[in-house]
Amino acid sequence: MKHRLTLAAYPQGLPGPEHFHLDSQPIPEPADGQVLLRTLYLSVDPYQRNLMAPVGPGYAPPVPLGGVMVGGTVSRVVASRHAGFRPGELVLANAGWQDYSLSDGSDLLALGDVKQPSHALGGLGMPGFTAYVGLLDIGQPKPGETVVVAAATGAVGSVVGQLAKLKGARVVGIAGGADKCRHAVEVLGFDACLDRREPELARRLAEACPQGIDVYFENVGGDVLAAVLPLLNLNARMPVCGFISHYNDAAPVPGPDLASVLAKRIRVQGFIILDHYGERFDAFRRDMGAWLAEGRITLREDIVDGLEQAPAALARLLQGGNFGKTVVRVSES
Amino acid sequence: MKHRLTLAAYPQGLPGPEHFHLDSQPIPEPADGQVLLRTLYLSVDPYQRNLMAPVGPGYAPPVPLGGVMVGGTVSRVVASRHAGFRPGELVLANAGWQDYSLSDGSDLLALGDVKQPSHALGGLGMPGFTAYVGLLDIGQPKPGETVVVAAATGAVGSVVGQLAKLKGARVVGIAGGADKCRHAVEVLGFDACLDRREPELARRLAEACPQGIDVYFENVGGDVLAAVLPLLNLNARMPVCGFISHYNDAAPVPGPDLASVLAKRIRVQGFIILDHYGERFDAFRRDMGAWLAEGRITLREDIVDGLEQAPAALARLLQGGNFGKTVVRVSES
Repeated sequence: MKHRLTLAAYPQGLPGPEHFHLDSQPIPEPADGQVLLRTLYLSVDPYQRNLMAPVGPGYAPPVPLGGVMVGGTVSRVVASRHAGFRPGELVLANAGWQDYSLSDGSDLLALGDVKQPSHALGGLGMPGFTAYVGLLDIGQPKPGETVVVAAATGAVGSVVGQLAKLKGARVVGIAGGADKCRHAVEVLGFDACLDRREPELARRLAEACPQGIDVYFENVGGDVLAAVLPLLNLNARMPVCGFISHYNDAAPVPGPDLASVLAKRIRVQGFIILDHYGERFDAFRRDMGAWLAEGRITLREDIVDGLEQAPAALARLLQGGNFGKTVVRVSES
Repeated sequence: MKHRLTLAAYPQGLPGPEHFHLDSQPIPEPADGQVLLRTLYLSVDPYQRNLMAPVGPGYAPPVPLGGVMVGGTVSRVVASRHAGFRPGELVLANAGWQDYSLSDGSDLLALGDVKQPSHALGGLGMPGFTAYVGLLDIGQPKPGETVVVAAATGAVGSVVGQLAKLKGARVVGIAGGADKCRHAVEVLGFDACLDRREPELARRLAEACPQGIDVYFENVGGDVLAAVLPLLNLNARMPVCGFISHYNDAAPVPGPDLASVLAKRIRVQGFIILDHYGERFDAFRRDMGAWLAEGRITLREDIVDGLEQAPAALARLLQGGNFGKTVVRVSES
């Protein structure tokens, strides 16, 4: 049987297992031109929360009630009636939260013979690409500049900080808990990492950034942005890829005030990573593949077992409970 | 005698004549290496409000209590002990709100034999340069795109709109009053201009921008920004040169919310025109001089007579009572 998680209700606030429905169906047969995929890993990402609403965020269609929850997967071709794919092949897919799915191949990327297939959902996939485009193309850190990133051990933040170090910047992370902060400094090589659960974040951030902040990679919003703003240097850059601290709010999320934007000549630039695949994904895969192989980038995963655990994993991610890239292992590879 | 206006008190809210002190002193003698200048025109600009405070906006030092109010001027050299300037020459200067001043020449720009010297304070000077850098370098309108600018008949907005038309964009202005709106369309060539005093600005703006908005040149903030935000297109650009509707407020001025910045991939970019003189001023003077000479750009001035009228002219400007670039004629040329 095939199992799938569909959206059962729109959450107000934090989503949980009660907003999904688990059902089972016969495993489908591929039609001519299709492949049947078995999901090995599915990706749990903050943006998914934004698609659980009657009106979506604009950059991707929302999930309809009764529809399979969307998401990236690493899948194995188990049957193929498509000339481009053979059974046994690993692919990056968009199968969503189900263990079997059909595809016409148009949304698949062959992964070849990779060591850790799940990295295609993290540092070698969408989150890593988000860090790459946001930090390198928009943030453009120069040697000696100071880069600040929150969710510092998360899928995006951990790569942002390591890329900034590769570019010669000083990197200050913000993360929830002493263990994550230790990891950011000792394993990822950040210059400092502040525990956002401790009091006086603004004061501590000022101390950790004696030369001010040149690049703030915005992925959380809220208190962190408030602490960062007074420390931004002239001509600071602020790529905005998200603001996870607000995803369960209905209220508008304040951005930087105009007086700061003006006086400090700040560049605030929103970006949606989907826009950049055509232009930059090949360069990213080449660069990131090399950095990983050389041990210059370290990836940490937070792996959860079982399709039925995906809703709880998303809730945990949205509360900052994950430690590394959240991945659900749906079946053994 | 020399007359000068010094800052007598820091205003709370709108500044007025009561915040200045008019005094007179003997006309000074230039020392070796100095010139004595007589002010012909002085410039009244929104940024001056921001310098009337104990703590300045960061991009320029505030005016100390008892200090001469700062500002750009068109001045005539009346005596020179500087090899680079001869009596009779017209210069762009920073003499501030006084009718005679001394300079060592380092802040002077010879104007040569110009038709309308006061344009050096407007379309050919700082406000025109602000429009040029903000619109062309940051806003980068493409043919067929929609550009929105408020304070549409003011010193900056009127040039923004005309430059956008030169670049083939559709231009929608916002201005206070039917007479200004008529001027924007009939004289300046805007495609439409909305009276911000009429109700339902947001609805009218949506109607006037059926293709959405690609560039919003931010110079006012407040209600206009709120009406613009929902209409911004993907990859919209928002150069921020000021937010005059808030200059008399103490409260922080909200910028675009992060959800809009993200979903629409907006680029918000603060800029301070002082940063750009070295790099772009020559190109600006050449381009703008040609466009003016060819009649492709029209400048309108709101000229007030008498140094002692400068405080009231600033108050009027901050309330949107000016119609064109505000200039005070201090002495006959």
